[in-house]
Amino acid sequence: MKELEERIVRDGKVFQGEVLKVDSFLNHQIDPMLLEQMGKEWHRLFKGERVDKVLTIEASGIAMAAFVAKEFGVPLLFAKKNKTSNISDNVYVTDVESFTHGRTYKVQVSKEYLHAGERVLIIDDFLATGNALIGLINLCKQAGAEVVGLGCSVEKDFQNGGRMLRDMGYRVECLARIKSMDPVAGIEFVH
Amino acid sequence: MKELEERIVRDGKVFQGEVLKVDSFLNHQIDPMLLEQMGKEWHRLFKGERVDKVLTIEASGIAMAAFVAKEFGVPLLFAKKNKTSNISDNVYVTDVESFTHGRTYKVQVSKEYLHAGERVLIIDDFLATGNALIGLINLCKQAGAEVVGLGCSVEKDFQNGGRMLRDMGYRVECLARIKSMDPVAGIEFVH
Repeated sequence: MKELEERIVRDGKVFQGEVLKVDSFLNHQIDPMLLEQMGKEWHRLFKGERVDKVLTIEASGIAMAAFVAKEFGVPLLFAKKNKTSNISDNVYVTDVESFTHGRTYKVQVSKEYLHAGERVLIIDDFLATGNALIGLINLCKQAGAEVVGLGCSVEKDFQNGGRMLRDMGYRVECLARIKSMDPVAGIEFVH
Repeated sequence: MKELEERIVRDGKVFQGEVLKVDSFLNHQIDPMLLEQMGKEWHRLFKGERVDKVLTIEASGIAMAAFVAKEFGVPLLFAKKNKTSNISDNVYVTDVESFTHGRTYKVQVSKEYLHAGERVLIIDDFLATGNALIGLINLCKQAGAEVVGLGCSVEKDFQNGGRMLRDMGYRVECLARIKSMDPVAGIEFVH
């Protein structure tokens, strides 16, 4: 998506170790006009599918997923990161390994809001290792819900998450796919 | 706001101890069409003011605040709950006492995204004790930003948060104000 790529080039910051900061417009401060456009783009990409629900994970996926859900006219469900060891019987829960924070955490959704047979579009901000998305897929599997596809704003194409998910048979639509990035040489996109 | 009150009556669940669960449409599963309407209502209420930025706190305020920010055509900034004891020099940070979880936590925003002179509209989901809003006001004060007003989806009018904030001189606009609630007698609103 051209507008997103241009914005990443203009306002993103690349650091050593293949770190991209987009927190001026995507995941701390948020540009709602850009996110609404992104919602329309995912709708364009997936509108041939029946989508009953959009699923994301707190916190930085929520705003973009809300605009996607609005385009489809369906509810948004966000998985919560569990802060306690108390797991209620009324939730689906899975482990997610965090690359950024170097630890494993639990994410959960209430069983009341994810059902067998529902067709779910999963949205998240970054796709690198794919671990968070695998966690969301696991929650859908536990519920017997069907994953229509996966949408991420930014894919780090040089990591393996996207390839792994596509090899598993999932449709993955990322609005900006980064081939390489470097503080000096800049960012190159996959087209 | 009539649509929100009707939805609370229809889909909210009242438990003993003045607990209201609205997680089927507001803060776990989210109805984006309702939230967009709420965004339009806050815009109607505050459109006489110059608003440079919308500020909220993760996670359940993010979606509704994104729709408010879209209506004003301004950025949304969400304060992050700090999970570590490491506080960078580059953030404004404050303590928030959580009534629900019975503990104090730190919330922070990057100094890059909150500036002196900015006029900030603060949005959150629930207003009960007002502690989270006081925390967001503190972040604005640290930055030298000006609080235009405060918007919450649901106010528990029988708790003191709203009165305290109005007594401090802040304009507070809650889209549903609950006078009383009881599992048997149901919900009564302030009009």
